[in-house]
Amino acid sequence: MNYPNGKKGDVSSSNRKRPSSKPDFSNRGMTLEEDINQTNKAYLTLNRAVIHKKPTPVQIVNVDFPKRSAAVIKEAYFKQASTTDYNGIYKGRYIDFEAKETKNKTSFPLANIHKHQIDHMKQVCEHNGICFLIIRFTTLEETYLLPAEKLFPYWERQKDGGRKSIPYQEIVTHGYIIPLKFKIRVDYLQVLDDLYF
Amino acid sequence: MNYPNGKKGDVSSSNRKRPSSKPDFSNRGMTLEEDINQTNKAYLTLNRAVIHKKPTPVQIVNVDFPKRSAAVIKEAYFKQASTTDYNGIYKGRYIDFEAKETKNKTSFPLANIHKHQIDHMKQVCEHNGICFLIIRFTTLEETYLLPAEKLFPYWERQKDGGRKSIPYQEIVTHGYIIPLKFKIRVDYLQVLDDLYF
Repeated sequence: MNYPNGKKGDVSSSNRKRPSSKPDFSNRGMTLEEDINQTNKAYLTLNRAVIHKKPTPVQIVNVDFPKRSAAVIKEAYFKQASTTDYNGIYKGRYIDFEAKETKNKTSFPLANIHKHQIDHMKQVCEHNGICFLIIRFTTLEETYLLPAEKLFPYWERQKDGGRKSIPYQEIVTHGYIIPLKFKIRVDYLQVLDDLYF
Repeated sequence: MNYPNGKKGDVSSSNRKRPSSKPDFSNRGMTLEEDINQTNKAYLTLNRAVIHKKPTPVQIVNVDFPKRSAAVIKEAYFKQASTTDYNGIYKGRYIDFEAKETKNKTSFPLANIHKHQIDHMKQVCEHNGICFLIIRFTTLEETYLLPAEKLFPYWERQKDGGRKSIPYQEIVTHGYIIPLKFKIRVDYLQVLDDLYF
């Protein structure tokens, strides 16, 4: 495997390597969302960062208010999110990201991301927030952090009729592998520390 | 009306004054939430800040997937929020707040705020975020920004068996009136500019 030339701001190459031996504890069955929620909970407990997943946006149409018990939503629909799923604060900086997993082994399909999410990410970058994508290749058992600035050119290219996915190898090149750990399952702050702090 | 002695960090007294003449345009009928959503939309359009309301947290119990049409949520319940309702980024700083209105003319009842929201606000302050409460006295037609640090002592006092509300006059003293405008209905960034930037 080739490594890109060490650009300024890149994390150490050891961080970028695919783990040569898989950890003992099997993480199969946990979704990326569950892993990130557990990670954020650990960060909160350790007082390292305050980052939460936003609730799923739902359009409520009909609510029943039975006597002496809680209101029941009887009819509602899933709405498309207008922002990313996760945000919060780390070392005084605004953090904002979206997390996606794919079974695909050779590329990440851009259909996973919506236009208004890209618009939101661009706004966050403009206002000096730290914005990125966490991509898990579930079959390969690898999770990458891809800075939003590296995502935008691929998005523009497909908008102009180009390739509708990011090749795996380019995510390896432009992204940063997130170490899989036991207590902090997706330790993305470690990558941010190397990149921004 | 008395003004507090000008402490460091306070906004100019003109900003603290109750408007002597009410604006012409009537704002009645708009809830504080609607006003803030409209304000955040204007900030986004003007590229001043990226601040959004989080979706209402809902516990989904039963979903129907009809053929050839959108999934329908058939049973769900409102969950208590574990954070505040609004967050985002302004001038590179993390912004986090909760908004509440009361018909009460003489005090703001602390029952409007939940313990886990206070815990969240304390965490945000610790990590150097800008955190506050927007309080509207609907009957008086006045809206105040109260920094979270000023809110905490009142919360602690009621926890220890003390008064269960903040007197209106103390909100006038420790808070900052938010000017009511036409296009930007609740211009809280103007107050933040004076306080933090």
